[in-house]
Amino acid sequence: MKIAIIGGGSSYTPELIEGIIERYERLKVNEIWLVDIKEGEEKLKIIANLTKRMINKFFLPIKVFSTLNHQEAIDGADFVINQIRVGGLVSREKDETIPIKYKTIGQETTGAGGFANALRTIPVVLKIAKIIEKTAKKATLINFTNPAGIITETLLNYTDINTIGLCNVPINMIYEISEIARCKPEELFCKFAGLNHLSFISQVLLKGKDITGEIIEAEEREIVKNIKKIKKEISISGLYNIIPSPYLSYYFFRNKMLEEESNKIPRAREVMKIEKKLFEKYSNENLNEKPQELSQRGGSRYSLVAISLIDSIYNDKRDIHVINIKNNGAIKDLPDNSVVETNAIVGRNGITPLSYGELPITLKGLIQQVKYYEILTIEAAIEKNYNKALKALTTHPLIGDVEIAKNILDDILYANKDFIPEMR
Amino acid sequence: MKIAIIGGGSSYTPELIEGIIERYERLKVNEIWLVDIKEGEEKLKIIANLTKRMINKFFLPIKVFSTLNHQEAIDGADFVINQIRVGGLVSREKDETIPIKYKTIGQETTGAGGFANALRTIPVVLKIAKIIEKTAKKATLINFTNPAGIITETLLNYTDINTIGLCNVPINMIYEISEIARCKPEELFCKFAGLNHLSFISQVLLKGKDITGEIIEAEEREIVKNIKKIKKEISISGLYNIIPSPYLSYYFFRNKMLEEESNKIPRAREVMKIEKKLFEKYSNENLNEKPQELSQRGGSRYSLVAISLIDSIYNDKRDIHVINIKNNGAIKDLPDNSVVETNAIVGRNGITPLSYGELPITLKGLIQQVKYYEILTIEAAIEKNYNKALKALTTHPLIGDVEIAKNILDDILYANKDFIPEMR
Amino acid sequence: MKIAIIGGGSSYTPELIEGIIERYERLKVNEIWLVDIKEGEEKLKIIANLTKRMINKFFLPIKVFSTLNHQEAIDGADFVINQIRVGGLVSREKDETIPIKYKTIGQETTGAGGFANALRTIPVVLKIAKIIEKTAKKATLINFTNPAGIITETLLNYTDINTIGLCNVPINMIYEISEIARCKPEELFCKFAGLNHLSFISQVLLKGKDITGEIIEAEEREIVKNIKKIKKEISISGLYNIIPSPYLSYYFFRNKMLEEESNKIPRAREVMKIEKKLFEKYSNENLNEKPQELSQRGGSRYSLVAISLIDSIYNDKRDIHVINIKNNGAIKDLPDNSVVETNAIVGRNGITPLSYGELPITLKGLIQQVKYYEILTIEAAIEKNYNKALKALTTHPLIGDVEIAKNILDDILYANKDFIPEMR
Amino acid sequence: MKIAIIGGGSSYTPELIEGIIERYERLKVNEIWLVDIKEGEEKLKIIANLTKRMINKFFLPIKVFSTLNHQEAIDGADFVINQIRVGGLVSREKDETIPIKYKTIGQETTGAGGFANALRTIPVVLKIAKIIEKTAKKATLINFTNPAGIITETLLNYTDINTIGLCNVPINMIYEISEIARCKPEELFCKFAGLNHLSFISQVLLKGKDITGEIIEAEEREIVKNIKKIKKEISISGLYNIIPSPYLSYYFFRNKMLEEESNKIPRAREVMKIEKKLFEKYSNENLNEKPQELSQRGGSRYSLVAISLIDSIYNDKRDIHVINIKNNGAIKDLPDNSVVETNAIVGRNGITPLSYGELPITLKGLIQQVKYYEILTIEAAIEKNYNKALKALTTHPLIGDVEIAKNILDDILYANKDFIPEMR
Repeated sequence: MKIAIIGGGSSYTPELIEGIIERYERLKVNEIWLVDIKEGEEKLKIIANLTKRMINKFFLPIKVFSTLNHQEAIDGADFVINQIRVGGLVSREKDETIPIKYKTIGQETTGAGGFANALRTIPVVLKIAKIIEKTAKKATLINFTNPAGIITETLLNYTDINTIGLCNVPINMIYEISEIARCKPEELFCKFAGLNHLSFISQVLLKGKDITGEIIEAEEREIVKNIKKIKKEISISGLYNIIPSPYLSYYFFRNKMLEEESNKIPRAREVMKIEKKLFEKYSNENLNEKPQELSQRGGSRYSLVAISLIDSIYNDKRDIHVINIKNNGAIKDLPDNSVVETNAIVGRNGITPLSYGELPITLKGLIQQVKYYEILTIEAAIEKNYNKALKALTTHPLIGDVEIAKNILDDILYANKDFIPEMR
Repeated sequence: MKIAIIGGGSSYTPELIEGIIERYERLKVNEIWLVDIKEGEEKLKIIANLTKRMINKFFLPIKVFSTLNHQEAIDGADFVINQIRVGGLVSREKDETIPIKYKTIGQETTGAGGFANALRTIPVVLKIAKIIEKTAKKATLINFTNPAGIITETLLNYTDINTIGLCNVPINMIYEISEIARCKPEELFCKFAGLNHLSFISQVLLKGKDITGEIIEAEEREIVKNIKKIKKEISISGLYNIIPSPYLSYYFFRNKMLEEESNKIPRAREVMKIEKKLFEKYSNENLNEKPQELSQRGGSRYSLVAISLIDSIYNDKRDIHVINIKNNGAIKDLPDNSVVETNAIVGRNGITPLSYGELPITLKGLIQQVKYYEILTIEAAIEKNYNKALKALTTHPLIGDVEIAKNILDDILYANKDFIPEMR
Repeated sequence: MKIAIIGGGSSYTPELIEGIIERYERLKVNEIWLVDIKEGEEKLKIIANLTKRMINKFFLPIKVFSTLNHQEAIDGADFVINQIRVGGLVSREKDETIPIKYKTIGQETTGAGGFANALRTIPVVLKIAKIIEKTAKKATLINFTNPAGIITETLLNYTDINTIGLCNVPINMIYEISEIARCKPEELFCKFAGLNHLSFISQVLLKGKDITGEIIEAEEREIVKNIKKIKKEISISGLYNIIPSPYLSYYFFRNKMLEEESNKIPRAREVMKIEKKLFEKYSNENLNEKPQELSQRGGSRYSLVAISLIDSIYNDKRDIHVINIKNNGAIKDLPDNSVVETNAIVGRNGITPLSYGELPITLKGLIQQVKYYEILTIEAAIEKNYNKALKALTTHPLIGDVEIAKNILDDILYANKDFIPEMR
Repeated sequence: MKIAIIGGGSSYTPELIEGIIERYERLKVNEIWLVDIKEGEEKLKIIANLTKRMINKFFLPIKVFSTLNHQEAIDGADFVINQIRVGGLVSREKDETIPIKYKTIGQETTGAGGFANALRTIPVVLKIAKIIEKTAKKATLINFTNPAGIITETLLNYTDINTIGLCNVPINMIYEISEIARCKPEELFCKFAGLNHLSFISQVLLKGKDITGEIIEAEEREIVKNIKKIKKEISISGLYNIIPSPYLSYYFFRNKMLEEESNKIPRAREVMKIEKKLFEKYSNENLNEKPQELSQRGGSRYSLVAISLIDSIYNDKRDIHVINIKNNGAIKDLPDNSVVETNAIVGRNGITPLSYGELPITLKGLIQQVKYYEILTIEAAIEKNYNKALKALTTHPLIGDVEIAKNILDDILYANKDFIPEMR
């Protein structure tokens, strides 16, 4: 088995490597290929060396390669993991700050920040897709690159690649619930629906018992994880009778979230500092394991979701994962060919969503509106169509205003002119 | 033929009376019943006297009655026209000012203002409906009372009354287009879709020629009518390839509209002044026609839509009107049993919407979201359910934030405690 | 205005000409072009001469042309009327007899007979369509050629021509009802749904009064018109609470109808005799009007539907006709892009179906099944795909059996080898 | 764990008991309750004794009870297995013979035979359901009673019982395919869609490889199992690109199947003979295992599907079964609340169908039509509505003719007057 990691120089990579090592008994990986762009060459080298030390520690017969040549890395791979960040943290900082100028949320995946990220990333991902189509037709592409929902939908609707979109938010929600319920995560069945970074759990079952109510009660007292911590007066868990993805706060507490964001240094800057320290650690030739500090980086259980998914496919486990997948009627209120985040059966024989049914009317409109924004954003990026981009951004429920949208769009296009192709 | 006018003491009534007089040849009205509540007794008297003078001027054999007894007014009516305003202009002022406190649009029908209006109006309308069900089962109820979409949906889904929702915005849009096209309004076919105060024209045909493009070009240079006049940098006509209802500005230019609203005296106050003057005029015993000043009041062509609709029903004309009607699949993306504003055939044999098809993806989400807000608002009002009211208001695309929604809701409930039944 | 009549040598043509003459005040026709194929040259001449005599009788300034050149006839036409019969009555006789060999109904439009007719006709109609696309792009094509539903769907889905499918069955049903109700046909509103030769009336309104029940009671005592008269023990009017097209008997009384058909001389033969006599009449140089004998031919009110449709378009009447039109959501249970027979508004500004809603569950399956048969038949004809043709025929609810379908299909292909292109 | 078997005196019971014994390690059953009606008392005794001997052979601590009191048997059960046959084999013989009189297929579940069976069974099953609702609210009811699709839909739509419909046809299809593919059945993923006794496999995956084509090729040479063996000229596997349930032959080869049926002694008679011999065997006090002769009875792998389903629920396995379950959008073309036969995840936490998507247009109409027949049949049985029963039977694609339907219906009602409540 050959695994290619696009964006291999990422600080996240040791997380993945640790996962591969831990499951080696079930997943006999022969080759790991790390590939990155010229600008990331140095980081790539550091990661490749650390990777080799980690593998050697356990005397595993896995060969590690690093290269700047995507074709070489991808050629004949069984699994390709995509974790690139187009424009790096410098661009991310712009995504986080431009929208705030116009009093709307700027976030890596949500709102106008995610929109800019999508416009930068779609053309690059489509180029990588071309290479996969040519040299690793049968590979499964696991996409982590944000905005993960949009990127996965682009790949599934505009290429022939067998793509699965992953995110660590659902697994973290499940783990959080398992702590509340004092059970193992795998004993739970959490019914998920929605879109990436806009999903929720409508039902939690523990060994046949519906414990949704108990979990919601407990959640009402919890503070959301991963994203900005704000004081909230109302629990949307209680009000909507769901366990929400923490990202729903960007919608339901948009004013408070915006205020917080406006008063903090951008997350990109924090991450730059963390990354600097991490790479210093990684460079230490005595280090042969994932350092604890990586957990601050934000991608907790990132490896777990990726490697357990590969395990299910490779060993044909046919168990349930929460992934980004073509809807195909699973969620009634969303287009069939659009990508949703929901429960699906994963085996060597492919992936199939569980039938979900209708969304609650209280959440349906928000999710539909974001989905239409996503579809329009993909089309705008591919057609390089300025007016469509403007309509996409206006459609986003955090924007809504066409004049504001135009100002933000123009700022984004100017600030990203090295990455976003010119629009007509 | 007997016509009952609920809210007969309204300053709009002379408009209706003029219409009845003008079409008398086609519509042999025998009795007009004006009914109002105790608080409106004096106005009712003034209007009734003016009405009699107007009719006498043309020596028409129409009997005019005025009463405070709804049952007497409605009993055996062929047409009931509902134009009540629950809480009057005093409440309207609150609708217009409370939301602005929380930096969201407060408007008679749109946003949190329309929401408060709905909560006040639904219980009253349902009481009137009970009387109609009992004493005028076969009557057609023509509803003008705002929020007209929500009130019509309430009547169609929660009573057995044959209801048609009317608004003068569509007819004004058609007249405006006819001026641009230099043709008679009836020569045009304007394809309408959406909800009341959230509709648009996707196609304009003039004698078989598609002139949509020309009209849009002309519209791009026009200033919207009826609502606040703001300077806009972008034309949504041009961007979306539609002729929008002026009310769409509340969504697409929400920031500018809010700014304008925040800096003006509330429309309710202006209307109070206009009404004061109007009723002085109306009291003049020499006046026997609709005074010109009424046009400032805002309901232009109000009479035209009402009386031409009655004409189509009574004389079985089976021609096309733009009305609020059960969707029944006409607009694919909206629930079957929800009320939409679209083209429909009207005859004595009932009303049927023309099949519209799909909404454009650029507008679909906004319209769906508002529809879900409407459905939830009606349910909240009928169930007197505080949490549902909170979710309804949060669902509104101009609110979105659950904490803001809660603050507004609490203010609305406090300010309207004489009209809105207590919620649990 | 120029009208081109394809299949102008048909015995039906004088019917059309009479209609044009009668409405001349409203429809100022300048030119009538009659076109036919070489084999029909003689008939064409007879018809052309009769046409001229009919027009001269009223001293109307309409020029009449006849030609074998389709391009010349169609060039610049405003309306093209298609009434060809590919393979003539000789082929029709085969359509009526082959299926009976296998104990299934053979009929011009229904069952395997209509299927053979479709396979013969689709390629010819597509050739004519090419000429219209090139030389009369803006023309409205009125299609009478059977199977009218299938041919109209072919034209609407596989060409760019503005096509309306017509049939005289609905108008005859309306007239029949008007006789029962003792009113004028135009006073009625009959709510139609279904497919051509598979439609029904679910509601009859007379000046605002629902008289469906009375009509159904009367219908229960009636004998169906136009098609074979059989004695029936059960009224499907009463059972299904509809007024059915007489063609529904082919489905609901399939056994009795088959028995009758098996014991009669084929309708094609009868028609041959009638036509022979008709053309003898037509040749009489003293004849200058439509002879009464034409009524035996079967196309009663054929002219009425065609010319009143042209009137509505030309004079922008926007009144309701029952036509074959793209569904576009009007009937919920049938595909959007498939052709249905239902009420539609017709004006110069185009045609739009009235929204119908759901079919009753008792009839839905039959109509869906026939629609799928139609879609598959069109695809089979266009792709020249033997297996698809076999599946199409098996899908037909009057066949169902794949072995029987194969036998019939092979017989049809052999008997029609001069008309149906070879299949793979 | 307590298991109650309704119709415990059935000759199939030893099959179930064997399954329970084999899985005892995973399923610690404490009590088995066999219950039957008075008429089956003797058989029940024989079965109960055999059951005890079978369990004693393995020294298992399972208590066996037999009773004529349903309430006692069901009270507190974890699983209730329903395998009753209302009217016994005597009624089945009528189901198989009456329709043939009218030249339509008479079969236990398909056609008019299944219809009669449904009318007899629905009232009895609803009575049993009442007892379960009262005394074993949390039990899972596993229904084998035919027509299994109709009975399961009745239970799911008209009672509150957690019901799963089972049939041994899908598992037998999977085993047959595994023999062709020379693999273990559990290595396959077979994508099922349709209704009970009207389902098909559209895709076969073996360890990630799509082997549908190979299986279809092999199937083309096979003879269908379980039902009448007829010589067929055409393979519907090849033509439709599916692996069909053998029951599809009743539709696609309806003529040949009917001919065969007409010339054979009814299956009910054969079964009577088999049963007689079986019970003689069962009575032998030395017998302490399932006798081989049971395999002739027809329910092969009956136990496997039931007990492995209980295993998945009890041990929360969340693996894929082919069951009869509420559609809930899984198959796009069928009503949400109707029962379909498709792949579903089964765990202690409930059952969820995999999202299937659209049915192929070549099979969709047949399946929809049968579904509508099923819905109407259930309604007719519950409402005791003669006209609805007549429409139900007419809707069945093997009948179609309303006069034939009436004759059959009248015969059925007369012949089953002891079981089917009088209809109005």
